[in-house]
Amino acid sequence: MLPYKSLIQLKRDSSVALYIQLCNSFINLITNGSLQSSDVLPSTRLLSELTGLNRNTIKLAYEELISQGWAESVERKGIFVLSKLPVLPEKKKTNSDASVDSSAEAFSWINPFPEIQINENYQESVLTIDDGFPDVRLTPVDLLMREYRSISKKFYGKNFLKYGFPKGSENLRSALTRYLSNTRGLSVNPENLLITKGSQMGIYLAAQLLLTKSDNIAVGVSNYRSADEIFRYVGANLLRIPVDGYGMDIDFLEVMLKKKPVKAVYIIPHHHFPTTVTMSMERRLKLLKLAKEYRFAIIEDDYDFDFHYNAKPYIPLASIDHNRNVIYIGSITKTFAPALRTGFMIAQPEFVTAAASLRQLIDKQGDSLLEEAFSSLFDNGEMERHFRKSLKIYKSRRDLFCEILQSNFNDVIDFKIPEGGMAVWSVFDQSISLPKLSWDAGKKGLKIADGSFYNNEIFIPNGLRLGFASLNENEIEKSLELLRKII
Amino acid sequence: MLPYKSLIQLKRDSSVALYIQLCNSFINLITNGSLQSSDVLPSTRLLSELTGLNRNTIKLAYEELISQGWAESVERKGIFVLSKLPVLPEKKKTNSDASVDSSAEAFSWINPFPEIQINENYQESVLTIDDGFPDVRLTPVDLLMREYRSISKKFYGKNFLKYGFPKGSENLRSALTRYLSNTRGLSVNPENLLITKGSQMGIYLAAQLLLTKSDNIAVGVSNYRSADEIFRYVGANLLRIPVDGYGMDIDFLEVMLKKKPVKAVYIIPHHHFPTTVTMSMERRLKLLKLAKEYRFAIIEDDYDFDFHYNAKPYIPLASIDHNRNVIYIGSITKTFAPALRTGFMIAQPEFVTAAASLRQLIDKQGDSLLEEAFSSLFDNGEMERHFRKSLKIYKSRRDLFCEILQSNFNDVIDFKIPEGGMAVWSVFDQSISLPKLSWDAGKKGLKIADGSFYNNEIFIPNGLRLGFASLNENEIEKSLELLRKII
Repeated sequence: MLPYKSLIQLKRDSSVALYIQLCNSFINLITNGSLQSSDVLPSTRLLSELTGLNRNTIKLAYEELISQGWAESVERKGIFVLSKLPVLPEKKKTNSDASVDSSAEAFSWINPFPEIQINENYQESVLTIDDGFPDVRLTPVDLLMREYRSISKKFYGKNFLKYGFPKGSENLRSALTRYLSNTRGLSVNPENLLITKGSQMGIYLAAQLLLTKSDNIAVGVSNYRSADEIFRYVGANLLRIPVDGYGMDIDFLEVMLKKKPVKAVYIIPHHHFPTTVTMSMERRLKLLKLAKEYRFAIIEDDYDFDFHYNAKPYIPLASIDHNRNVIYIGSITKTFAPALRTGFMIAQPEFVTAAASLRQLIDKQGDSLLEEAFSSLFDNGEMERHFRKSLKIYKSRRDLFCEILQSNFNDVIDFKIPEGGMAVWSVFDQSISLPKLSWDAGKKGLKIADGSFYNNEIFIPNGLRLGFASLNENEIEKSLELLRKII
Repeated sequence: MLPYKSLIQLKRDSSVALYIQLCNSFINLITNGSLQSSDVLPSTRLLSELTGLNRNTIKLAYEELISQGWAESVERKGIFVLSKLPVLPEKKKTNSDASVDSSAEAFSWINPFPEIQINENYQESVLTIDDGFPDVRLTPVDLLMREYRSISKKFYGKNFLKYGFPKGSENLRSALTRYLSNTRGLSVNPENLLITKGSQMGIYLAAQLLLTKSDNIAVGVSNYRSADEIFRYVGANLLRIPVDGYGMDIDFLEVMLKKKPVKAVYIIPHHHFPTTVTMSMERRLKLLKLAKEYRFAIIEDDYDFDFHYNAKPYIPLASIDHNRNVIYIGSITKTFAPALRTGFMIAQPEFVTAAASLRQLIDKQGDSLLEEAFSSLFDNGEMERHFRKSLKIYKSRRDLFCEILQSNFNDVIDFKIPEGGMAVWSVFDQSISLPKLSWDAGKKGLKIADGSFYNNEIFIPNGLRLGFASLNENEIEKSLELLRKII
């Protein structure tokens, strides 16, 4: 007889009746081969003794098992597993569910991510110099909650709980249209704007629509790795173009264009990732001209337009792109709270509509409640107040951080004071191994990256983006002090 | 001279300084060719007269234009567009931004969605018989808001605002693991569970990983159209298998398997969409055996497991799938609020990790705040209380709805009382044209579908899913009364 006492583990506090749980346990034993056709089931009395369950419970379970077609009652003999059960698997060697040999391939598929790439280390509270994230302590969460409550209370507010628009909340699209027109000279119709789940989704949709296997896309020698990964996933080839102090070398690109067909060019003209350089106006205009001539798309990733400290920012390529080559991708809430991801894509109407159709296939729509809340925060000016307040704070943090870098790290770190964004691109002296530095720092209570995120097949800069924005003055001093000690 | 008075439209209530807006306006005029190299700009006095702007504002704008490299000041002559501007486009024929000929293809791409497929008609408040949505008036929004506030107030609660886990909130994965184990006999490790943005994303991820161009996937002759669209998008061929009162005809599938290689089979065993039939246990077991023998994956879409009125539901294939062929996809919050999309995928660990990696490429992660809130609602029992309360209400609505269908529509509608779910699959007499019915109903204030969502290349059932769940008793009587009149 099977060791029912240990095999049958029921949860008394479950919302599912005990007799159902018991019935399911038996079904499991039958289908995994522990019980075979015509095997006898223990009497209610015996099972009750073994498990402590009420005999009536067991009786109900057996009745359920019979009515579902797994067992039969033979008069004066007992309850038996059905003699004619269809297609049961052979008896397993063990009784445990967990020991299926997962290396035996049940079905064939090709894993596009053979090395596990999931980053699951975000939630640590140790002192961290991050990659350039905003300070979530500055996020006006209370304002957001107030908007949520306000929206949900309105009578028609429950509409947001039904399905929404794949292109995104109409209110948010209107608010963004106004905001982008005011701040970036982007003249856009709400119909040409798609709200995405962060700029990441914008890049993913654009890549899916533009690129197919073996297409060429031009990207920087140094580039945003997540974008590289998306382009590779859809099968495209990355053509690496050098990036210097003025951004991507467009002359080099022009030479490349004469030799290979290029479907698209991906640029981060505002603050290149990782090097934070700004693309010169001359190169922007030349790129637009080449795009028109060679008929390629420009994916303009403008994820942190709002954070510039010194000069007025150049207006985006999208604002001066009269030939409609640019697919403009931005992020509104990277600066609000990274986890509440809201971005947008602006492009030719047909392209945006196709992107919305694809988006609909992927996850149907965005988070209506969040989109409505953000729309309110734009309309009542709170969003911009938040930007301006953060900007001030981040600027002084940048200044302090760079001051300390300059005075204490002059011998080992080469850097330029960034004109915007939330991190300093810091190239370390070759004598310093970043993986070792990261390891040593970790042991001393300071979390910093090991630099691998910025490396690729041809670019190994021995550099880090050192994020200053999410640290207050005290933390800046403390973390850099620790870092100096470790070096 | 250009008509500056109408060309220059600034927003005084913008957060962007007027002089910056003015500078940007000029840049636009230069780059679209309205102003050419060496053109003279109007004097500050003249422009002030034309636009009403303060002369100082204009002066600042010109200084900015010069410092950004667009213009130069020639002593005693005025301000001129730079004579040596790089690569400007030729002068456009018109001055308007909006009249770019969008049919001229700026870059080449293939639109996978040539017929626009965006559904933007959800937010209407007219009396509607929907496709089978829950009643959002029953959603305990206050409870959700309370959780949101509680989470955001906790000191460490701000962690949810930073990046989260691609597989989803750990707390929600644990809560779901317990819930699924209790209610469906699914024994799952939180590591094999991926939280997705609705079941739609689960299907999308599975399709992307399993299928490539020209692969075969077996689906029902009648099927959930959104799934069909995803499979087609990734390039797979749909092999149609008949569906009868016991679900997909697995004998037919077996014959097909001998003739063609099949990568995957997509089933909705609980309540088939659209026909609401339940797949028999015999066929479920046979399908598992075939999957093991022919090595294909089974995508089990179990989107509305929780809503069954009569019999105890069969446990999912995933619970008795000891060979790990099943990719189990579910939706937790379809029953809570359709717009707050939270679903999950359970499969072999390697497959789930690959799905999470792909998910990370698409939109990085889910909505941490929402996931934490749902996790609380599971842990404190509120979620299950909501399910049980809704179930009771939906059951009595089903009974009333079917009663009226039986007594008043016997001559024109063929239907079976559904054992679960939120709609009645109703096949209309061939004499009734559903598009016409939908049109006529619309004119009389009743919104119903035209049936096209359920049709495909070989299946034109002249049927509708009539959703009873989202209508209260009054609305049920009223809508069916209207419908009877229209027929």
